Amino acid sequence: MNEAPATLHTGRHFLQIPGPTNVPDRVLRAIDMPTIDHRGPEFARLGLAVIDGCKRVFQTAQPVVIYPSSGTGAWEAAILNTLSPGDRVLMAETGHFATLWRKMAEKLKLGVEFQPGDWRHGADPATIGARLADDRGHAIKAVMVVHNETSTGVTSRIPEIRRAIDQANHPALFLVDTISSLGSIDYRHDEWGVDVTVAGSQKGLMLPPGLGFNAVSDKALAASRANASPRSYWDWQEIIAANRTGYWPYTPATNLLYGLREALAMLEEEGLANVFARHDRHAAATRAAVRAWGMDILCADPREYSSALTAVMMPQGYDADHYRGVVLDRFDMSLGTGLAKLKGTVFRIGHLGHFNDLTLMGTLAGVEMGFDAAGVPYTPGGVIAAMNSLTGRAENL
Amino acid sequence: MNEAPATLHTGRHFLQIPGPTNVPDRVLRAIDMPTIDHRGPEFARLGLAVIDGCKRVFQTAQPVVIYPSSGTGAWEAAILNTLSPGDRVLMAETGHFATLWRKMAEKLKLGVEFQPGDWRHGADPATIGARLADDRGHAIKAVMVVHNETSTGVTSRIPEIRRAIDQANHPALFLVDTISSLGSIDYRHDEWGVDVTVAGSQKGLMLPPGLGFNAVSDKALAASRANASPRSYWDWQEIIAANRTGYWPYTPATNLLYGLREALAMLEEEGLANVFARHDRHAAATRAAVRAWGMDILCADPREYSSALTAVMMPQGYDADHYRGVVLDRFDMSLGTGLAKLKGTVFRIGHLGHFNDLTLMGTLAGVEMGFDAAGVPYTPGGVIAAMNSLTGRAENL
Amino acid sequence: MNEAPATLHTGRHFLQIPGPTNVPDRVLRAIDMPTIDHRGPEFARLGLAVIDGCKRVFQTAQPVVIYPSSGTGAWEAAILNTLSPGDRVLMAETGHFATLWRKMAEKLKLGVEFQPGDWRHGADPATIGARLADDRGHAIKAVMVVHNETSTGVTSRIPEIRRAIDQANHPALFLVDTISSLGSIDYRHDEWGVDVTVAGSQKGLMLPPGLGFNAVSDKALAASRANASPRSYWDWQEIIAANRTGYWPYTPATNLLYGLREALAMLEEEGLANVFARHDRHAAATRAAVRAWGMDILCADPREYSSALTAVMMPQGYDADHYRGVVLDRFDMSLGTGLAKLKGTVFRIGHLGHFNDLTLMGTLAGVEMGFDAAGVPYTPGGVIAAMNSLTGRAENL
Amino acid sequence: MNEAPATLHTGRHFLQIPGPTNVPDRVLRAIDMPTIDHRGPEFARLGLAVIDGCKRVFQTAQPVVIYPSSGTGAWEAAILNTLSPGDRVLMAETGHFATLWRKMAEKLKLGVEFQPGDWRHGADPATIGARLADDRGHAIKAVMVVHNETSTGVTSRIPEIRRAIDQANHPALFLVDTISSLGSIDYRHDEWGVDVTVAGSQKGLMLPPGLGFNAVSDKALAASRANASPRSYWDWQEIIAANRTGYWPYTPATNLLYGLREALAMLEEEGLANVFARHDRHAAATRAAVRAWGMDILCADPREYSSALTAVMMPQGYDADHYRGVVLDRFDMSLGTGLAKLKGTVFRIGHLGHFNDLTLMGTLAGVEMGFDAAGVPYTPGGVIAAMNSLTGRAENL
Repeated sequence: MNEAPATLHTGRHFLQIPGPTNVPDRVLRAIDMPTIDHRGPEFARLGLAVIDGCKRVFQTAQPVVIYPSSGTGAWEAAILNTLSPGDRVLMAETGHFATLWRKMAEKLKLGVEFQPGDWRHGADPATIGARLADDRGHAIKAVMVVHNETSTGVTSRIPEIRRAIDQANHPALFLVDTISSLGSIDYRHDEWGVDVTVAGSQKGLMLPPGLGFNAVSDKALAASRANASPRSYWDWQEIIAANRTGYWPYTPATNLLYGLREALAMLEEEGLANVFARHDRHAAATRAAVRAWGMDILCADPREYSSALTAVMMPQGYDADHYRGVVLDRFDMSLGTGLAKLKGTVFRIGHLGHFNDLTLMGTLAGVEMGFDAAGVPYTPGGVIAAMNSLTGRAENL
Repeated sequence: MNEAPATLHTGRHFLQIPGPTNVPDRVLRAIDMPTIDHRGPEFARLGLAVIDGCKRVFQTAQPVVIYPSSGTGAWEAAILNTLSPGDRVLMAETGHFATLWRKMAEKLKLGVEFQPGDWRHGADPATIGARLADDRGHAIKAVMVVHNETSTGVTSRIPEIRRAIDQANHPALFLVDTISSLGSIDYRHDEWGVDVTVAGSQKGLMLPPGLGFNAVSDKALAASRANASPRSYWDWQEIIAANRTGYWPYTPATNLLYGLREALAMLEEEGLANVFARHDRHAAATRAAVRAWGMDILCADPREYSSALTAVMMPQGYDADHYRGVVLDRFDMSLGTGLAKLKGTVFRIGHLGHFNDLTLMGTLAGVEMGFDAAGVPYTPGGVIAAMNSLTGRAENL
Repeated sequence: MNEAPATLHTGRHFLQIPGPTNVPDRVLRAIDMPTIDHRGPEFARLGLAVIDGCKRVFQTAQPVVIYPSSGTGAWEAAILNTLSPGDRVLMAETGHFATLWRKMAEKLKLGVEFQPGDWRHGADPATIGARLADDRGHAIKAVMVVHNETSTGVTSRIPEIRRAIDQANHPALFLVDTISSLGSIDYRHDEWGVDVTVAGSQKGLMLPPGLGFNAVSDKALAASRANASPRSYWDWQEIIAANRTGYWPYTPATNLLYGLREALAMLEEEGLANVFARHDRHAAATRAAVRAWGMDILCADPREYSSALTAVMMPQGYDADHYRGVVLDRFDMSLGTGLAKLKGTVFRIGHLGHFNDLTLMGTLAGVEMGFDAAGVPYTPGGVIAAMNSLTGRAENL
Repeated sequence: MNEAPATLHTGRHFLQIPGPTNVPDRVLRAIDMPTIDHRGPEFARLGLAVIDGCKRVFQTAQPVVIYPSSGTGAWEAAILNTLSPGDRVLMAETGHFATLWRKMAEKLKLGVEFQPGDWRHGADPATIGARLADDRGHAIKAVMVVHNETSTGVTSRIPEIRRAIDQANHPALFLVDTISSLGSIDYRHDEWGVDVTVAGSQKGLMLPPGLGFNAVSDKALAASRANASPRSYWDWQEIIAANRTGYWPYTPATNLLYGLREALAMLEEEGLANVFARHDRHAAATRAAVRAWGMDILCADPREYSSALTAVMMPQGYDADHYRGVVLDRFDMSLGTGLAKLKGTVFRIGHLGHFNDLTLMGTLAGVEMGFDAAGVPYTPGGVIAAMNSLTGRAENL
């Protein structure tokens, strides 16, 4: 026997939660530069560069608003700008984050219709379409969907939902959370007719947490101008106006913006199409491993597999958090916990952001060795299946 | 003649705006470390450390809430937690930032009584006391004051205002903005009976911008619990509850928190009393220079001189922003602009944060040489006066 | 099929050559601090700290001299201080680096007896002992051995060689190169009676290259004092004298010394015994993988397996460097080349320094997937065998 | 009185010794990147870039050899490659570093003729010319001169010395130490007919210490090829051969080379002519200050004023090192000590490297305030004189 003493960590930590993700050295080093005057000419160049670069990543020609905030702040911004207390909105229960966004909407006094879900499927375009078709009086002011549900590894089909809204000929705004998909999974703000896209810095954008984003359509901007309900910090108008010359109405998070400039450059060097293909490959390899282990993927519909993370269902009777604790202790790897009703029954493997084949293989080896270390029953071979998937060495799934 | 070619910059930029301030290398390097799992045990140690350290800097035993936000976000948090649309508040027009806070309060539908000011004095305790004494029905729900008005270099006398409130026997909450004073000018949340203290990361705390703070009294907490108006991101309750174990309800700005831990350590190594004395010394030396140049300090009352910055009135007929542009171009130093109604007539020298005698002297030499370069009339000798002040070489002011 | 486009690299590079090794973030960030006055009091504290810490890592109470140099510089220092042109020395041909050290000795005009070797074994204690026993006139002034031959992954048995010298009752100095063993493989300068230990910064010490080391016995110091041959830069005397107060006679490599201080702290936090056990585990797992692939380990004697690297013999007819090129291109991993006569027939896996189980598994997965990508025949299963070895899941070797 | 408590340091240290100099953030951050394989393709690009960039800074088309070493290592390299024990060389006693180089030459068994000097003048072209003219048998193999004597602030006139050698029609090699001039004071390896130029990283090149340089003429290369005396580490041949493809024969100091690449980029962005003009301006301003204080500049000949540093003679009866200690303690500034026979009577102000007007003014203010703090008699006004010099506000010198 040849085991490492527990809790003795050396080498690089494996941060394989579905975000925050591993921040590239180039990005960290960019952040590690002296703060500058946020009203000076050098800042304006920075501001214009990041706003412009963001548009390319959101695939939009419309404004992208960047907040010093968490992703939840960007949720709030999307709501406060476009909706008012009492407004009715249609949301879909895709998992924990959809539920949290709903809670926020309710705290902000919206009337939420929450289409129930089993946390194994994405938002259903047909059900949404049907509900909107029913809503002849257009009481529903917005449809709010989480693109990639970080708690479940299920990616809702945004273009189909858009089509459903259109087919219902319904004027509702379309608000989409891409916090864990932007920069990892193909997403097209303009082409898909989204009105507000919500994002955060700490996932596919490869930054530390601390920035929130709203990409905003003309229709959303018009709604915001018409919206008299109280707001200040999140209000788009002043920010968009100041952004025109590269500034903000308050002191923005300068150093994180340095990092954003560098991260955007990295995404462009790789090319968005390549970034998405890379995430697809790693997700496929991860699922191959999970299947080989004889475990179930939480996501029930292959059309909705997430390329950013995979949620794995624990064998019955085994606690996912105990398992995660063993993996952290023994192999210095952080895996994502099962959230809310998935607590203890699911763990999540993040395979997004600044990532590559060998880091994935280290990750999956850690998952597999963790089963042994925690006494979780499984069929060996997941790591082999993943290698097969990556190399095309054998049929993959 | 021996002039440098314009716009050729080498060496270290002098960032002498009154914030963001110069971030210490130790702090930048702390920020430049890999992001960790915000739900793991290592994060909890970080969370508890920064919350605890903040209390010592705010001089409070009560909760300090840390937001991923700008300082304006912390303004909004203070309002949304304790007040509701329609509530009446008393504010004092000390300058541009007091005016901005007022604007925010109005956007958030408060009824603001704005005691007029000349932007050369702090909030007047007597006037506030008189207004509160008049307010028999206790319509006024809060008194909101900017401790150190960053646009003018005037520091309001918070303990005297507290006394005025007490003498009026008025139950109004007391909300104080310390964005440009915390960590630079003595400030005592508990002893001075403040209910909500608002702060930001990028001034005396020596961090990049991106964190906002609320220190919160029991009375403020009670008000917040009783307050039914809509809010989510800024809501204290969930954050304070999660903070008990060192966590946040959402993904906090992990890397800025690394920096905060380091900055708090630096403040404690120096000792808060020494930190404040250092700022006092530098402010006195700066004023000595301004007087020697034959210029006027915007702050009209010596009891209210700011130890964080000094606003200088330009000789009539000379544009402060043209002058600032020359200084930036020629000497690679950023000075603070005159804001709003002070535009063009005032410039501001920041002497706060991670700072020392020689950096101050470089700064003041740049100001003085800038007068020549920009053709601004002045009496030579400010630099000498400042050295005299620092060394006690001659009588100082 | 599911392949990544060639030469598209994202995520963290796998630097799995046997040095330079992966430098920990803590160490890089320590290096990334302002340079200080090398004659000031703060420097003295740094100097004393690193000299003292080095002693613990070399397991010596005698002086350790630190040079701004490569490891080859430390080789030269060991020779120039203790030996003179014309001196006869006994060396053992353990591989490429022993051969390079021999070449250097010859350039420096020593008379080298080079005991031939097959590059698959370490220096043979018996042969050395026999030669010394024959040398009745004590013509041989020094025995020079490479502890861990970086080109072959063979670790010579230093204590046995020491015993052989003692049994021959021979006064020769004992010079040992630990460039790729120090901080990775147990090594005891004092206990093993070594006179000069040569080391470098970029392997087990987890630093960038740029520092060379000599640990020096009393006997070596005496030899150096008696040695009249010309030398200056490498001369121990002045350095050891200046080191007493924490200084150097010239400007030392200050920032690398910052890194050294941090790296020494990390080694002590982990504990040297744990550091060595960790390297042993990883080496055992790597060998398990190599055997499972059906390939040969270059090191022929299990007593001499290196815990720092494993050299793997390519199947006949397959070029190791072509294979390495494919691995670099496809998987962004650097493996060690076969040096000199091993060129094309051997590749080397570094598993030393700042390293852990999951990085090892990523490494071995990359080696295995590289076989496929380069069309190298192998038996699948190495990765599984390594996991078994690490977890004790099945019998390991 | 308004003094800071002693030894309480905050803000940025003023490192105003004449090297190591203040390393730019860009350079430190470049160094703070992961070490790469020194035999891989990415390294080759780095290697070629820095070798090429160095040529432009040395103003040469001939090879520049970069060592992991201190500047003294580069001294030794220059000697060992071109000269042999017993060779006669002509050196000039310009100060402490010339004396140290002489000592090294003697340790390496050269026969040194050391033309005496008063440490206030540079090497005298006429005396050198006369000695060479006398040396009909060409016994003198090399003339070795320090370009900028760091211990005195005197810059020898290299082109005039070259002319003197030529006029004597003497074949001696010309070896020049530019450790504290390269990148600060105009220097032209090719145009001035120097055979070996010696340099270090930690002065005008704005890097941490740890790299030594030799720029090498064809004549020097030929001498080296003909030179049979023992050497290995410093031998040019193998390095120059390996450099052709961007590599080194051993592991070079990779991370410092990252820094070198960045520093070279910065020098080129500013433009060498601008870099030299900037140093001239700052030196002139410094001398204006010294004169205004009523103190003497050590350098006695205005043609030989150093643009990199100024050595100041203390008033008689006052100890320069006590003064320096007070300045360090009170103002957190490191000034250069008086070396060897100048100990206690001279201090040195470094004004080279990454530097600008305001940092110079902070420096000079610290020097002036230090006089007060240490009780050193002086005439106030140096700081004013320096400002006048910088701005051309009044006649400057």
